[in-house]
Amino acid sequence: MIDEKILEVLRGGKDSYVSGEELCKIAGISRAAIWKHMEKLRHEGYDIEASPHLGYRLISIPDSLIPSEIKWGLKTTVLGREVISYKKVDSTNDIAYALAEKGIKEGSVILADEQLKGKGRQGRVWVSPPKGGIYMSCVLRPEMAPAEIPKITLLAAVAVAKAIRQLTGLDAMIKWPNDILINDNKVCGILTEMKAEQDSIVFLIVGIGINVNTPIKNLPKGASSLRQELRARGMAENVSRVELARKVLEALEEHYIMLREKGFGPIIEEWKTMSAMVGAQIKVVLPNRTFDGLVHDIDSDGSLVIRLNSGMLQKVSSGDVVMVR
Amino acid sequence: MIDEKILEVLRGGKDSYVSGEELCKIAGISRAAIWKHMEKLRHEGYDIEASPHLGYRLISIPDSLIPSEIKWGLKTTVLGREVISYKKVDSTNDIAYALAEKGIKEGSVILADEQLKGKGRQGRVWVSPPKGGIYMSCVLRPEMAPAEIPKITLLAAVAVAKAIRQLTGLDAMIKWPNDILINDNKVCGILTEMKAEQDSIVFLIVGIGINVNTPIKNLPKGASSLRQELRARGMAENVSRVELARKVLEALEEHYIMLREKGFGPIIEEWKTMSAMVGAQIKVVLPNRTFDGLVHDIDSDGSLVIRLNSGMLQKVSSGDVVMVR
Repeated sequence: MIDEKILEVLRGGKDSYVSGEELCKIAGISRAAIWKHMEKLRHEGYDIEASPHLGYRLISIPDSLIPSEIKWGLKTTVLGREVISYKKVDSTNDIAYALAEKGIKEGSVILADEQLKGKGRQGRVWVSPPKGGIYMSCVLRPEMAPAEIPKITLLAAVAVAKAIRQLTGLDAMIKWPNDILINDNKVCGILTEMKAEQDSIVFLIVGIGINVNTPIKNLPKGASSLRQELRARGMAENVSRVELARKVLEALEEHYIMLREKGFGPIIEEWKTMSAMVGAQIKVVLPNRTFDGLVHDIDSDGSLVIRLNSGMLQKVSSGDVVMVR
Repeated sequence: MIDEKILEVLRGGKDSYVSGEELCKIAGISRAAIWKHMEKLRHEGYDIEASPHLGYRLISIPDSLIPSEIKWGLKTTVLGREVISYKKVDSTNDIAYALAEKGIKEGSVILADEQLKGKGRQGRVWVSPPKGGIYMSCVLRPEMAPAEIPKITLLAAVAVAKAIRQLTGLDAMIKWPNDILINDNKVCGILTEMKAEQDSIVFLIVGIGINVNTPIKNLPKGASSLRQELRARGMAENVSRVELARKVLEALEEHYIMLREKGFGPIIEEWKTMSAMVGAQIKVVLPNRTFDGLVHDIDSDGSLVIRLNSGMLQKVSSGDVVMVR
């Protein structure tokens, strides 16, 4: 809390110095304590200049997924009000799940720079190398039936795709049910997990992995990063992970409220505009069989409606789909 | 395992003695070790007579929810092949859930004689006094979508109601979604919990609490026990908890296989024959409103279809219902 107060004052000072005396007064601590906090902030990556006579000046802030940065200027009321950040974890979803079982409040967010056992759907791995990714798990406690979980997954895909589009201008597309592609390359995956009783969700974890500035050589085949996709378009720039994480949280909250107030209709409409699925020829891979068909629609429960070659419509609520050209 | 082998031999001996020598040979341990195992079994409630010249004889077995008794003659292939029994726990569902997270296999069953924090639906308490109840949680790992969880709850209600009917002859009825009533008194509740991903159940815990011989004074208002209901019909007998637990496991497995092989249709039909719901006038209590109606049907997804006074049909998948006379 004191760190955040100090940062707020330094940011407010823009490029000019803030005296140690002033900082002491605002933070309500001693000069020596201010010094210690400055050391801690420098350790977190803040470049803070100290001048004996003038005081302190903020030179640069780190693109680090630490709570004070995520929360800075975050326009949400619930999501991201509680942020816990790690350098390295097995899985942010597992941590969020365990904390949710202990009662951590709705909107809490677990972030990590690296995951050793990042999880994908159906027991798969989500490759989560350090230096450039966002690995983020949000705890939600919606008053919903378990059957409604696909709605949250689709909602999250819409939120992430919109955040990426807004920040980078890249044409992020959604692939049912939970991937975000750019130019057919996967840049983001979403894994929703929940604990539920027979008729109500107890809590829900929305896990989001985004390859932001991740070196492409550390990613599996078919995967890409936002930086890589920008580079391919002649825009060789790093994307601010902090800014993207904030935008994702804001978009998530906006659509989460939308779902509660207006139902799933508007979200599914947005989903369709950002998905190249409807009308596409696909192959559906289920555990025990595969079949081909044309995507006819997305159902109001989030499942895919497929027109089989026989003309019949078939609903698919799980499994993998492969786009066929 | 040795306990179970010894018991098997003693049971096989019927009312006659089995020599210590024979037991040593079969169990592959020393006379002194046999003696120790006998002491342990006596401690568990087995009445075993020892005669210096004749050997050992089984006088009576305890009605105790211990693994060796549950497994004895149990006609299942999956359910109850792994049984863990406790005298006293907070919640068998919580233990089963934690073990399931660590990978305990499908069909594992957690039993307790008493629960200190027995759980009901929606954060309610399931009063679980010692001396006479069955508190049982089964771990299932079905390949199903989260939306299908109500099917398992209804299936469990059918299985428990049938087991009670078979063993006691009592007219057990199902009240949607998860209570078993006899003469309008609640004798059993079912709480299904799960961990799931967006499109597949990871595991499912079916928690079953049955008031078997529980003293009525230890139960909340509106609750009864099987013994109490038998007594009310002039049949003042204790019900074997072990036998009932076995019958429940057998019926559960039978219907679980039925669901996999024949779908939900046959189960919902059975459900209807044991429910006084269809055609009944009820009041539905949801978190934010209540309304009256006539139960029109049970839907294929397990929800209640209610004909409102306006004539319109309304589906209800959660909430409480009160039968109105």
